[in-house]
Amino acid sequence: MLKPFHPPQRILLGPGPSNVEPRVLQAMLAPLLGHMDPVYFSCMDQLQELLRAVFETSNRVTFSISGTGGAGMEACLANLVEEDEEVVVCVNGFFGQRMAEMAARWGARVVRVEAEWGSPFDMQQVREAFKKSSGRIVTMVHAETSTGMRNPIEELKSLRDVRDAILVVDSVTSLGAHPVGVDRNGIDASYACSQKGIGAPPGLAPVTFSERALEKIRARRKPPRTWYLDVQILDKYWNPERVYHHTAPALMNYALREALMIILEEGLENRWQRHERNSRAFVAGVESLGMEMLVAPEHRLWSLNTVRIPPGVDDAAVRNRLLVQHNIEIGSGFGVLKGKIWRVGLMGTNSNENIVLLLLAALRSALEG
Amino acid sequence: MLKPFHPPQRILLGPGPSNVEPRVLQAMLAPLLGHMDPVYFSCMDQLQELLRAVFETSNRVTFSISGTGGAGMEACLANLVEEDEEVVVCVNGFFGQRMAEMAARWGARVVRVEAEWGSPFDMQQVREAFKKSSGRIVTMVHAETSTGMRNPIEELKSLRDVRDAILVVDSVTSLGAHPVGVDRNGIDASYACSQKGIGAPPGLAPVTFSERALEKIRARRKPPRTWYLDVQILDKYWNPERVYHHTAPALMNYALREALMIILEEGLENRWQRHERNSRAFVAGVESLGMEMLVAPEHRLWSLNTVRIPPGVDDAAVRNRLLVQHNIEIGSGFGVLKGKIWRVGLMGTNSNENIVLLLLAALRSALEG
Repeated sequence: MLKPFHPPQRILLGPGPSNVEPRVLQAMLAPLLGHMDPVYFSCMDQLQELLRAVFETSNRVTFSISGTGGAGMEACLANLVEEDEEVVVCVNGFFGQRMAEMAARWGARVVRVEAEWGSPFDMQQVREAFKKSSGRIVTMVHAETSTGMRNPIEELKSLRDVRDAILVVDSVTSLGAHPVGVDRNGIDASYACSQKGIGAPPGLAPVTFSERALEKIRARRKPPRTWYLDVQILDKYWNPERVYHHTAPALMNYALREALMIILEEGLENRWQRHERNSRAFVAGVESLGMEMLVAPEHRLWSLNTVRIPPGVDDAAVRNRLLVQHNIEIGSGFGVLKGKIWRVGLMGTNSNENIVLLLLAALRSALEG
Repeated sequence: MLKPFHPPQRILLGPGPSNVEPRVLQAMLAPLLGHMDPVYFSCMDQLQELLRAVFETSNRVTFSISGTGGAGMEACLANLVEEDEEVVVCVNGFFGQRMAEMAARWGARVVRVEAEWGSPFDMQQVREAFKKSSGRIVTMVHAETSTGMRNPIEELKSLRDVRDAILVVDSVTSLGAHPVGVDRNGIDASYACSQKGIGAPPGLAPVTFSERALEKIRARRKPPRTWYLDVQILDKYWNPERVYHHTAPALMNYALREALMIILEEGLENRWQRHERNSRAFVAGVESLGMEMLVAPEHRLWSLNTVRIPPGVDDAAVRNRLLVQHNIEIGSGFGVLKGKIWRVGLMGTNSNENIVLLLLAALRSALEG
């Protein structure tokens, strides 16, 4: 017989999940409801309103996918991409790369616009690629979790001068920590996750689709293969028709609702500023320890901070000391940045001054060995 | 500003979710771990062992999909079905129908073997259809949640006399309540859910794949379109390679682990007998109220009990009285059985004598109006 599971109380400062506030955990303990219960429907309605506020959108089709951020990415691409359609995918990190691979799986002929991992895109190049391509979809990762790079989603809108672009933005590591501004930035589809800037446990993917995106989806020659992530039939459950699709993960949605309420109580602007302030404090500390950030200041994420590992320092040994001696998780680099950077998440409740002070002290100690 | 969400404490006797034991809810409050934390890996290993025990299998590839039961269905079909392959789908209810539709989405030429909703299959007809078909896959819903029918999955194995069949079984409403016996019954792929016989909250789909199923998947001409549900890359995260795929819904998996431990502490045989005993008690009560069951005794599910609505009784009014006056949820019929049956779940912790007594008393009162 197995023993009860009593994991250590980690301070989660990796790329996510981040720690969850007690209020959010408590929300999961509200009585479980069935997915066709009128009281649950009211929870869904509220959840949609809250998600619209945080995405900064009036999109009717805004809800949570019953899966993690990757399911959100798949929901956007599987529904929007049609067989043999050209899709311009901006790639300057692992998640841009994943979008390219996933779009190809769903039938796209992918036109990649690439930059080095951790370097900004040449937006003129994005524009040229879109001009030359025969498709409408352009995708960009807002917050590239693999590099700590913030990409300029606010510049995508100008592609509409060229043609009727459908803009797909990954906001997994930005939503709740950085302004995403779906409507303001003309974004047609975006997906996020529950466990980073939002501050809920992992398991859900908020998504939003503009009317333009839905028009494209409704005009598909064939429905997408996926049934679980088919946005049109999911919408029939989330909208007042309430056509049964799947059994909602109700407790996860309770948690997400509570986390979104906490965000709006704090205020979006205040929350973004807090993330910026604590990121700057962390960077100052890192630099005072004689280390450097990977990304240039003007492109840095506040939610995910990437530190160059100093020459001669044993990556795994430092991370292991942080984990074992301090119960602090930070992330390793991957892909071309494996062994070269640490990825430090300061997200949601963990974007706070005491966490920054503790982390810097623990990091100093771990570096000394 | 929204108020805190305080839903009523329902007694969930519909088709699922069922109520969750406090021990399982408490398990969700264990400290959150990152998806690459070695302590979380140990939780995953234990979860796999527990799932193997409950599925009654030694299949290495046995884990939880980070989505609901429908994602489990999609994981099985999307990985196993290849373009233009004939697939024999047994349909005698809504979920058989859903398997047919989903298999078609994933490229199958579906050969349906049908029986009336609530009636048994002619297994000779299944055999003939398989003989005539050019494919290897045969699918059957073990516990048809739309009708309360238990289908004879133990008879599928004999199809191997005909050809090298790949047997896909939906155990969503049976696992944890009825014996599924994956290895004993020669099942090659099966998917379930967390929120019915298992007794965890909704949000996860246990799946298991035999070596034969994996051979077929490895021999695909093209990978399945779905990335989120690609079993081969999911396996790389669940097996000791631990290649990152998605951020695990850790708290949901803690809950599933605890619910599975409760099952094994009770013992599978004891648990099945308990579900049978309480179903029989409920049926006796229903009949003493002058009502009839939809399904013949030898084909009845214990987990999901379908009662014919007596002539002249207002379906919605009775269900509404149960919900509003007694906080009891039961399920309505759907499809061809809409307005004709009630679906009463006695699953997991809710399969108990007091629940049966209460439900019968409340039903009697609700019928009197």
